[in-house]
Amino acid sequence: MTKTYQIVGIGNAIVDVLSHCDDAFLAEHGIEKGIMQLIDKERAVTLYNRIGPALEVSGGSAANTIAGAGQLGGRVAYVGKVTDDQLGRIFAHDLRAQGATYETVMAPPGNGAETGRCIVLVTPGGERSMNTYLGSSEHLDPADIDEAMMADAHWIFLEGYRFDGPDSHAAFARAIAATKSTGGKVAITLSDPFCIDRHRDAFARMLREDVDLLFANRAEMTSMYETDDFEAALERAATEVDIVVGTDSENGATVVSGGERWHVPAVPTDVVDATGAGDLFAGAFLWGLVNGYGLETCTRMANVAASEIISHIGARPEADLKTLFSRHGLL
Amino acid sequence: MTKTYQIVGIGNAIVDVLSHCDDAFLAEHGIEKGIMQLIDKERAVTLYNRIGPALEVSGGSAANTIAGAGQLGGRVAYVGKVTDDQLGRIFAHDLRAQGATYETVMAPPGNGAETGRCIVLVTPGGERSMNTYLGSSEHLDPADIDEAMMADAHWIFLEGYRFDGPDSHAAFARAIAATKSTGGKVAITLSDPFCIDRHRDAFARMLREDVDLLFANRAEMTSMYETDDFEAALERAATEVDIVVGTDSENGATVVSGGERWHVPAVPTDVVDATGAGDLFAGAFLWGLVNGYGLETCTRMANVAASEIISHIGARPEADLKTLFSRHGLL
Repeated sequence: MTKTYQIVGIGNAIVDVLSHCDDAFLAEHGIEKGIMQLIDKERAVTLYNRIGPALEVSGGSAANTIAGAGQLGGRVAYVGKVTDDQLGRIFAHDLRAQGATYETVMAPPGNGAETGRCIVLVTPGGERSMNTYLGSSEHLDPADIDEAMMADAHWIFLEGYRFDGPDSHAAFARAIAATKSTGGKVAITLSDPFCIDRHRDAFARMLREDVDLLFANRAEMTSMYETDDFEAALERAATEVDIVVGTDSENGATVVSGGERWHVPAVPTDVVDATGAGDLFAGAFLWGLVNGYGLETCTRMANVAASEIISHIGARPEADLKTLFSRHGLL
Repeated sequence: MTKTYQIVGIGNAIVDVLSHCDDAFLAEHGIEKGIMQLIDKERAVTLYNRIGPALEVSGGSAANTIAGAGQLGGRVAYVGKVTDDQLGRIFAHDLRAQGATYETVMAPPGNGAETGRCIVLVTPGGERSMNTYLGSSEHLDPADIDEAMMADAHWIFLEGYRFDGPDSHAAFARAIAATKSTGGKVAITLSDPFCIDRHRDAFARMLREDVDLLFANRAEMTSMYETDDFEAALERAATEVDIVVGTDSENGATVVSGGERWHVPAVPTDVVDATGAGDLFAGAFLWGLVNGYGLETCTRMANVAASEIISHIGARPEADLKTLFSRHGLL
């Protein structure tokens, strides 16, 4: 059966505020390097007043994934909440401009939360330290999950970060049930080791019971299975999940599925800004999968897409990904 | 006498919305390539809905100039109007983050005009076609000109684009009078040949009577003096203005002043996005001037700053300009 949507992503709808700083700035402001930390509105304002000039670009982990799959021509949709303010309209525009369906009702502007944003501080070398004010994105609740859309999707893609916030677990449960009711499948990214610490039990249950495809990097995979051994964590995950994809930065990615495994080297690239590399990896992988490519080819596509993202500022692709795939002999 | 401000810029406060497109898109939407065209709010909405994903970054011609001079450590201020909305707060932040004083009262949010924005469409080769919705920036009126600030400035820098909009000429007249009352000087950029067509008489009178330093590129200089001969236009301008700076893209820049002239070659650079090259040229030139460098060195600094800007997306400097000046033996 062909469904309307190949992939529907659900996540925190966020506009990135990208700025450069040095390690001393991170230390001075108590920012942990290289991870995502949640901040409240007051700290968002204080921190913004201290950072240098910035540029604003639509982000959000699953939204980046969907934007990537959309740019590739995938039939994709996104569910995530913004406020009906200028940043919310920017977020909506940028997603629809990649061909994604995006119909989540916006929160009313005024006294409530504004559109969420992430102050991304890029240090020399391209590592990013993320400071996320969730804003209205944390108020995505079960009523925002359109069951008909989920039932009409081959895959849903769940963002680990979206486990933060009230009602998020109930919203995911509703989405999963509707998707599975018509034979759809569930992919998830663990997003961040600290996010795993906050929601370990919920992740564990979902991996055992619901998830068909898991994306996690070395830190996340080992955190999830509470081991220092990446390989052991991959094997353990493979006992629970059909397709396990473990990424390991410049060491490439490993897929384990159906008793087989493939290791695919990373595409060497000068790192300008690592923001979104994992998101686009997932977007390209899923696009390959729903278009019938084998797991190894999907992983090669994913590595090419990740290398595109880290070669420039911003977490959405600038180059045409299909052209890059052709250049690498993948199409 | 040392004044508080070395340079005070006055212009249209604009947030740039940067997106890529091809020549066919420009043709299809009736956009003239390579120039700035004013659009109304309705067209701004329509056009935005048609463009691809974008990124938002503070712009505004004179604001870019002031940001550049501010990054160099200049004592600078900016006068231009935004609305108290998200884009307006972004604009204010980015300018202050470069060390500029920025105190213009924001227009109230709500039913009035939003913060102005410019949809900058970058075509292959880096040329930009600008579509400006002035928003609240066109409502900068004489009451927004703080005469005490102008009197406390060595130089004011007037943006030609700011001649559009009601009350703009009166606001400039007030600024010029206050500046000259304490021996301050007036610099101007003509901004754009079509802007000159709209306000030829006002520009001509100001050049004859008020302006001490003129920045114009080949197209603007020849338009202003209604000749095809760039050299003749420069000589003609020099009979009216103390310091005349003519820029000519990759052919470099020429300064004419006090019967002398200098030609300074451009710094070869791969053009990624030409947005802001002229603005930063002016910012670096003015910074050199107020810090006592000779006109030729000022022009060399200006060329280095322009080359930095065109090497990346966005009209504000990313690299440390003083470091670049040192590398070119200019400090």
